[in-house]
Amino acid sequence: MRIYDLIAKKRDGGTHSREELEAIVNGFVSGEVADYQMAAWMMAVYLRGMTDEETAELTDVMAHSGVMVDLSPIPGIKVDKHSTGGVGDKTTLVIAPIVAACGVKIAKMSGRGLGHTGGTIDKMESVPGTKTALSQEEFFAQVNKIGLSVIGQSEGIAVADKKMYALRDVTATVSCIPLIASSIMSKKLASGSDAILLDVTTGTGAFMKTVDQSIELAKLMVSIGTHHGRRVAAMITDMDTPLGHNIGNSLEVMESMDVLKGRGPADLTEVCLQLAANMLVLADKGSPAECRAMAEAVIADGSAYAKCKEMFAAQGGDTRVLDDYSLFEKPAASYELLAEEDGYIVTNDAEKIGSASVLLGAGRQKKGDPLDFAAGITLHKKRGDYIHKGESLATFYGAADKFDAAAAEYRSGLVYGSEKPEEAPLVYALVTKDGVERY
Amino acid sequence: MRIYDLIAKKRDGGTHSREELEAIVNGFVSGEVADYQMAAWMMAVYLRGMTDEETAELTDVMAHSGVMVDLSPIPGIKVDKHSTGGVGDKTTLVIAPIVAACGVKIAKMSGRGLGHTGGTIDKMESVPGTKTALSQEEFFAQVNKIGLSVIGQSEGIAVADKKMYALRDVTATVSCIPLIASSIMSKKLASGSDAILLDVTTGTGAFMKTVDQSIELAKLMVSIGTHHGRRVAAMITDMDTPLGHNIGNSLEVMESMDVLKGRGPADLTEVCLQLAANMLVLADKGSPAECRAMAEAVIADGSAYAKCKEMFAAQGGDTRVLDDYSLFEKPAASYELLAEEDGYIVTNDAEKIGSASVLLGAGRQKKGDPLDFAAGITLHKKRGDYIHKGESLATFYGAADKFDAAAAEYRSGLVYGSEKPEEAPLVYALVTKDGVERY
Repeated sequence: MRIYDLIAKKRDGGTHSREELEAIVNGFVSGEVADYQMAAWMMAVYLRGMTDEETAELTDVMAHSGVMVDLSPIPGIKVDKHSTGGVGDKTTLVIAPIVAACGVKIAKMSGRGLGHTGGTIDKMESVPGTKTALSQEEFFAQVNKIGLSVIGQSEGIAVADKKMYALRDVTATVSCIPLIASSIMSKKLASGSDAILLDVTTGTGAFMKTVDQSIELAKLMVSIGTHHGRRVAAMITDMDTPLGHNIGNSLEVMESMDVLKGRGPADLTEVCLQLAANMLVLADKGSPAECRAMAEAVIADGSAYAKCKEMFAAQGGDTRVLDDYSLFEKPAASYELLAEEDGYIVTNDAEKIGSASVLLGAGRQKKGDPLDFAAGITLHKKRGDYIHKGESLATFYGAADKFDAAAAEYRSGLVYGSEKPEEAPLVYALVTKDGVERY
Repeated sequence: MRIYDLIAKKRDGGTHSREELEAIVNGFVSGEVADYQMAAWMMAVYLRGMTDEETAELTDVMAHSGVMVDLSPIPGIKVDKHSTGGVGDKTTLVIAPIVAACGVKIAKMSGRGLGHTGGTIDKMESVPGTKTALSQEEFFAQVNKIGLSVIGQSEGIAVADKKMYALRDVTATVSCIPLIASSIMSKKLASGSDAILLDVTTGTGAFMKTVDQSIELAKLMVSIGTHHGRRVAAMITDMDTPLGHNIGNSLEVMESMDVLKGRGPADLTEVCLQLAANMLVLADKGSPAECRAMAEAVIADGSAYAKCKEMFAAQGGDTRVLDDYSLFEKPAASYELLAEEDGYIVTNDAEKIGSASVLLGAGRQKKGDPLDFAAGITLHKKRGDYIHKGESLATFYGAADKFDAAAAEYRSGLVYGSEKPEEAPLVYALVTKDGVERY
């Protein structure tokens, strides 16, 4: 099987066999297939597409290019959750404790932030002392003991995906649904959970800019997971505007804890309850209504918040900051971004808010950049709110010399209007193996 | 202009401006555009296509990536000829002297052979002493004095094409008509002739496997040349079966000299006369019929053969071998390939014959491989001939240890039948800026 012939096959619209996909992916990992050959093949995939079956096989080949985590030493159904990424997306920190408090085990590996989107692992590390790199034994022991652990994704997971993603990022082959789906699902298959809830974010701050694209991606990911014997469902959620008010690492931890304490922002709380309920449904804990009630109950009785503190404590974190946010590291400076006119906020572009927060030090422009855990943005007015000239739109936290650049970035995504914009739904649809339910 | 955005533009079916093509091609030559980015872009071009105008601009950008030869120190119309390559394609050695003997100047740069197709420069070097690397001054002086010189293509011509071709060759983006056309025509534009006759070979031994594909390629190349102020025409010729009987460097020189001496094989002679006549038409020497008659006359009166000897002599070649072929270097051994059954030869795949001759040492598997000038094949029976079991199909020349492998290769392209196959035309069509004339 010559790589030249395999590129030519996809170029001509052919469908690859499992063996052919192994030759391509494993050859690329070993260096036998050159990066320019992989780039040509991925462009051919972009323009010729892949069948669902072919994408499912590609995903499994990518998963098997690295460590396949075997979670069988942890009894019971393990549920994972994945978000396609967004600005101020702090849901994992809320729903993992809720689901664990309801008795379903979470042995989750999570990523770091890059570009305008943040990562759960970075947020967790803003709690002083928190370890996000555990050995497999420590990880399994913690899940067996308290039902919950969230750690950084091992370097050994889906190694082909890392190499392929880096190449897609410089060859304009990122926005390709089979490649996005196989990238995400290869890591999920390798991570070993029995059930996976996908949060497919939609809008300016997300990968997928329209609901229809998001549904297409969600359907493909659900079909891949189902093909490989996993229980998978996907929620299509809004990412035109960030959930909640806080963007930045410790800022998002505070807001997540507010939700677990029953006093979080309504939009974030609602999305977290729906996500958690769907995870519980996947874990056979009851009907959607029953699962929703369970999720509400563990917030109301404090057990979800207690489970969260238990997890941080088990991983070495100083949980006093969760009770008293004033103990978090303080930002170097703060700045009030004032409205320049009266009016409704019609657009408040999530991607621009994300980029502004990166400028402040809350995120990374490139892999390995250091983070300022205290940096970030608190939104006082969001899409649909009315503001008077001179009122504060948002507070910036971070290094004072970055405030001007961040303000310009933030304002470039801001549109005022004289009429209140129509309210956007928080959740657009639920995709399961049985079909699509639009809300 | 970020290369990422330019790849994305072509991926999405956009049309590049001249400035964009310069950024891509010149960036690739300078190393600013990585090979994996160029590979992705070329696959996007393969699948999305280019407009004729865009291809013409790409060609000119590629031409200007290297030296643009200025032939103006040579007075009069200079005519060039290019063949898209074939097995046993020795026409340049015949028609360049014919055209020069008719008073039209030829200042031609030619290539070396690679794979199953040979190159004129290699054939010329089989004449002992022949220099194919002249300085520009020597080259111009020779053309001014005797009207004819054929030398090796300078390394400085169309440097982008060399780099792009090497990448296409390993990324399955060779068989793309805009990329083939721009590759060929960039070198022709840079080589400086006023008029260019293209010989687009068609069939198993050629790039283009069908007449329609060949016409499409020819039309595009004619349009590119016309766009840039050159006179261009293209003949579509057959390459299912090699022209003449000889494949191999000195073997092809002998056969070419036979044509110039008026005793060559009918098929080769006819194609050469048509090609030469069309070159004379491009040079305004008269009507097609008049030009044909002129070409026949310079063979009949010996002036074309004399011109050929004059060229070899001017470039240091020992022209005694042209008069007496027994003075050519002798092959190490020879071998008769015998027919295994009675019947008509229905298929005698030119590409397989070419590959067999490469195995014998007449060609190169990869760039820089040494050649055995005496190696090659003489065909005794070709497509349409009847042969009896035990008669000789062909004689192989070269190293004895390669005869078995070459015989297997040759036989793999051979089909016998009980009925005489229909005769294939030698020339299918003539393409000019005014249209396509099919024969």
